[in-house]
Amino acid sequence: MANTLSRAERRIAQRARSLNSSAIREILKLTERPDMISFAGGVPSPASFPLAALRDASARATHASSADIFQYSATEGYAPLREWIARAHSTSQHPVTPSNVLITSGSQQAFDLIGKVLVDPQSAVLVERPTYLGALQSLSLYEPEFVSVQTDDHGIVSKALEYIEPERAALLYLQPNFQNPTGTRLPFQRRRKIAEIARRTGLIVVEDDPYAALAFDGGQLPSIHSMAPDNVIYLGSFSKALAPGLRVGYMIVPGALQQKFVQVKQAADLHSSTLSQHIVYETVRDGLLESHVPRLAIFYRQQCEAMLSALDRHMPEGVRWNVPEGGMFVWLALPPDIDSAALLEDALAVNVAFVPGAPFFARDPLHHFLRLSFATVSPQQIDRGIERLAALINAHSRAFTPVFDLELDR
Amino acid sequence: MANTLSRAERRIAQRARSLNSSAIREILKLTERPDMISFAGGVPSPASFPLAALRDASARATHASSADIFQYSATEGYAPLREWIARAHSTSQHPVTPSNVLITSGSQQAFDLIGKVLVDPQSAVLVERPTYLGALQSLSLYEPEFVSVQTDDHGIVSKALEYIEPERAALLYLQPNFQNPTGTRLPFQRRRKIAEIARRTGLIVVEDDPYAALAFDGGQLPSIHSMAPDNVIYLGSFSKALAPGLRVGYMIVPGALQQKFVQVKQAADLHSSTLSQHIVYETVRDGLLESHVPRLAIFYRQQCEAMLSALDRHMPEGVRWNVPEGGMFVWLALPPDIDSAALLEDALAVNVAFVPGAPFFARDPLHHFLRLSFATVSPQQIDRGIERLAALINAHSRAFTPVFDLELDR
Repeated sequence: MANTLSRAERRIAQRARSLNSSAIREILKLTERPDMISFAGGVPSPASFPLAALRDASARATHASSADIFQYSATEGYAPLREWIARAHSTSQHPVTPSNVLITSGSQQAFDLIGKVLVDPQSAVLVERPTYLGALQSLSLYEPEFVSVQTDDHGIVSKALEYIEPERAALLYLQPNFQNPTGTRLPFQRRRKIAEIARRTGLIVVEDDPYAALAFDGGQLPSIHSMAPDNVIYLGSFSKALAPGLRVGYMIVPGALQQKFVQVKQAADLHSSTLSQHIVYETVRDGLLESHVPRLAIFYRQQCEAMLSALDRHMPEGVRWNVPEGGMFVWLALPPDIDSAALLEDALAVNVAFVPGAPFFARDPLHHFLRLSFATVSPQQIDRGIERLAALINAHSRAFTPVFDLELDR
Repeated sequence: MANTLSRAERRIAQRARSLNSSAIREILKLTERPDMISFAGGVPSPASFPLAALRDASARATHASSADIFQYSATEGYAPLREWIARAHSTSQHPVTPSNVLITSGSQQAFDLIGKVLVDPQSAVLVERPTYLGALQSLSLYEPEFVSVQTDDHGIVSKALEYIEPERAALLYLQPNFQNPTGTRLPFQRRRKIAEIARRTGLIVVEDDPYAALAFDGGQLPSIHSMAPDNVIYLGSFSKALAPGLRVGYMIVPGALQQKFVQVKQAADLHSSTLSQHIVYETVRDGLLESHVPRLAIFYRQQCEAMLSALDRHMPEGVRWNVPEGGMFVWLALPPDIDSAALLEDALAVNVAFVPGAPFFARDPLHHFLRLSFATVSPQQIDRGIERLAALINAHSRAFTPVFDLELDR
């Protein structure tokens, strides 16, 4: 028996051997205890789902006279939904046509398709530092060399791209709005600069924009895609604006790459759930998002304010964090001598969870960062959880204080 | 503009360059004309969907008090559905546990996950001759060498496996029941032999079984999986027994490989549609399949009989076909001098469609075969379509008959 098993394991392909389960999802398993105050999740608040509209849309979709919603359907996706998306992303200068739109099973699938189509082994994939773990995980199966581009409190430093031969890279991956994990929003001038570099060098930019709907001010900066549509693959999602369990996302793909992406999507799963696509279309067609998104923004802003004021109240000196303008995350810098993975062990013991920052670095990880989600915990519990976390950080700080300091204190 | 486009195309990765759209799906686009008699589809008949049960299940799933069905969920799949599948596949000798079961977005996704986990570039992937096109397409992205194993009217010749060093192959892929495209069912003794070879050599067998529910006699031969569970990855699907648009399939994976498959599934799309999984579970939990599958079998058997009797009535001498015991396909051998792709062009002109056989061969394709689906065309239209096809085959035969024969005929 043992012999058979090890034979099976020996057959695992090279590309899959180093893959690990997402650190986040492993931690999430620990956080299912009901008394856990979890800042670890990357999931939107179920309180934000437009449940009545989703149920109504499901009923309409399934009770349509035709059996089509249960049949195989087009790989590219449901045509009316693709038309709706194309209209939503068209600008006067750059119309998006439905043929540019490919429906995916969440944005996660888009990472996989992009890896298949654009990433040769050992090719350079440029990423922010830190960057979204789920994208790293998915792209890593295509065995690129990740290259971290200089990133500051406002996101990727666009000028830094000039110095790393963008014309030789397979692609640049970034999240322009309320980045996971840092929460930063990329300023307009940097977007314009990246678009200009892409047009000039042929660099393909993957603009992953799952949090667009969660801008606290309701405002939208122009996408990089709108400034360089022939060079940008834009990834959109209904996971935050509507609900993630439907697994409906989309790619907007330059004409030259469309056919290839349809082919790999077909090979990956033929098409995304027909019913899910119909439910999304039935939900958005009548303009639900116009009323729902502002409500979402208020909800997440209030959650964020609860966390920021709890941090202000409880955190000791030497701890820093960003002030996000949208999204679901605060990125916290501990004093450099505290390892956030060690802190997590103690935090779980007092029923508080978060995600350590190290896995978000493509290489040379920093160990004193952590990601806090404010999406799903009540303001009261946020305060309680942050208070406990602050106490632990204090304890860790003291533990690392040199002995002579302790003696002086006495 | 043209310059930008060609730059984008130059960035397509090596593995994706040779990928083509499925010949079937390209033909299907041509067959959407309402007057087309299409034997080309690989889709089940929408008349066979248990629509009332599916609608009822959708209503129950979406009106449950909880928002869970719209939230992110476990990568492995919905636990009650996994338990149901494990029970359905357990035998007294070999219990299947829910941890062996991974829900996939249709069986098509399983091909992709298997390619990721088990196929290194240039490794040998053993396949039937001919074999299922969709699997070839998906696995080809992982750049294996396909090796066709000798196959006869009863499926793969198990003994032939002995001569091709199965211990060095990445895997053997086959469809044991009513194979696509040939319709053959693998006899019990061959299943046993393959299980024995797998146990002895460590060969991993991918047993793809989407048509299990479509046995005309309602009978089931034991799966290879049930005879060698540590060596077989079994692929099941609800696409034919229920409806394909939900995109719910599953893998039963040996313990040694489970964790790796969960990791690549997570990287591929996090999880399959939560709602679709709930709908499937709500549909099957009360035993719907026990009454539905026998009805399916009668429906497809009658469709098949209509096609077989039309073939008997109309086809000229020199044309041969199998008599399937289940599934959706008849595999037709033309006289060897007729190319089925050329025949298709003429057939489309008289509004009849089918799929030429060549793309189902992993290498060295034969060009005088074609696949006919009897799933979706009414018996009356089947007769009409086969009559037209027979007339064309007659015409092609005459065109290729040497001149002196024609003169003798006059």
